Amino acid sequence: MNGLQRARRCAEKMYAADKASRALGIEIEIPRPGAAIARMQVRDDMVNGLDVCHGGLIFTLADTSFAFACNAYDRVTVAASGDIEFLRPAMLGDNLEATAHEDHRGRNSGLYTSEVRNQRDEVVAVFRGRSVSRDEALLGDV
Amino acid sequence: MNGLQRARRCAEKMYAADKASRALGIEIEIPRPGAAIARMQVRDDMVNGLDVCHGGLIFTLADTSFAFACNAYDRVTVAASGDIEFLRPAMLGDNLEATAHEDHRGRNSGLYTSEVRNQRDEVVAVFRGRSVSRDEALLGDV
Amino acid sequence: MNGLQRARRCAEKMYAADKASRALGIEIEIPRPGAAIARMQVRDDMVNGLDVCHGGLIFTLADTSFAFACNAYDRVTVAASGDIEFLRPAMLGDNLEATAHEDHRGRNSGLYTSEVRNQRDEVVAVFRGRSVSRDEALLGDV
Amino acid sequence: MNGLQRARRCAEKMYAADKASRALGIEIEIPRPGAAIARMQVRDDMVNGLDVCHGGLIFTLADTSFAFACNAYDRVTVAASGDIEFLRPAMLGDNLEATAHEDHRGRNSGLYTSEVRNQRDEVVAVFRGRSVSRDEALLGDV
Repeated sequence: MNGLQRARRCAEKMYAADKASRALGIEIEIPRPGAAIARMQVRDDMVNGLDVCHGGLIFTLADTSFAFACNAYDRVTVAASGDIEFLRPAMLGDNLEATAHEDHRGRNSGLYTSEVRNQRDEVVAVFRGRSVSRDEALLGDV
Repeated sequence: MNGLQRARRCAEKMYAADKASRALGIEIEIPRPGAAIARMQVRDDMVNGLDVCHGGLIFTLADTSFAFACNAYDRVTVAASGDIEFLRPAMLGDNLEATAHEDHRGRNSGLYTSEVRNQRDEVVAVFRGRSVSRDEALLGDV
Repeated sequence: MNGLQRARRCAEKMYAADKASRALGIEIEIPRPGAAIARMQVRDDMVNGLDVCHGGLIFTLADTSFAFACNAYDRVTVAASGDIEFLRPAMLGDNLEATAHEDHRGRNSGLYTSEVRNQRDEVVAVFRGRSVSRDEALLGDV
Repeated sequence: MNGLQRARRCAEKMYAADKASRALGIEIEIPRPGAAIARMQVRDDMVNGLDVCHGGLIFTLADTSFAFACNAYDRVTVAASGDIEFLRPAMLGDNLEATAHEDHRGRNSGLYTSEVRNQRDEVVAVFRGRSVSRDEALLGDV
């Protein structure tokens, strides 16, 4: 199993257990270890006034891309913190894409950036997350 | 209409339009202008592996408390950025409460902190949001 | 030695070694364990154009208050991250005061807020720092 | 005057006024508009205990690279906020280099990342800053 295969196996296992992301209609693609793309369409139950997507759900999309990016190495890895800059509103029906990549990975912690863009390739938000890894295999039961 | 009445009128109007927060079962209380409490129970469709609540939804709860806290002054106010520190996992069935207060309010921007606690009064997360106000009344049509 | 005495002993030992804070003229007061006040006057070599204090040095003052607040427990504790919101410029000659307090303290990590005010008690900046503690005594040689 | 020439003229004017950065021995290079490199050697008056560079001064270096990157367009631009992750200590004598680039630039605000590396090309810290531009020319008197 090479690095990309392992990253994809981790993602499949996580996705199967991740009811929250699936309930939001989020889909995941793993282009390489340490990176992930999460896609979500802004649904009617995701907007607040004026058909603008709730900022928390934009964060959730970015946070999901981060979670799949940092769990590529077969170690259970969780978010310690995250921050987001909201640059442009997302609207009902928009197709959002969050692309996460690894800025830094140390022994037990990592730093990831995710950029959220809409279907016109405009930047909606920029996210940064810090991860902490445990001494626990993710694919342990495989 | 005094300050607290105005804050509550703003909250009612926002809540009526906020399908996203309602879809998550979030309830709002306004104790005073510039503050808000948002409550949410962690449902089955909010967890990922191991029955742990998706961090994005914890952020969403805190972000919601922040949005209601900063929209107390009858001016349309949006989130410019937010950051969160995840201190303890939230589990399926947990009753979470996010309490937002105002740290600073300038002419067009504000800074708010929200603390998320569980039913055992343990701190789950600490959130900070920065708001930007527009020259637009929130209760314009009242 | 009670908690406050211990916190002050830690602060004295740190301050003696902290050439950087002393070179900036920063002074420290420890009101209680987990809290610290750092004071600095904006000197001529701290300003950039228009006699405005360099934001990095405002951060440094806040970060210093945080470092002294989180090192109150006789364990070597370092900053893992920090963020700051700049709310108002500080000017040449201003007397700045950064007041740090503890928001949360876990087994090995902590979260602290510091507010920087000027001599008119106006808020100049709000800082938040996350600390990590090592299994190492600070007052080891005492 | 093309974009790079303008960016460099802005940097020269700022640097001439920036006593704080010069007092820290910081030097600036402008590779292109929206980017800047700031270099600083960790001096004896920049360390705290154990000859480790004060984190505030690492922030100051990154913040300086950010300030020069975002002031490339002949509009007075200031920092609204900044955050930093400290990944590795910097030691007495280390030659630090902060490389800032533009993640996003809107009409009146921008988002910049700066990475601080040591002479062994190891990442010491990752910084992100948000800028706000005023309707005021920087090179007004030229």
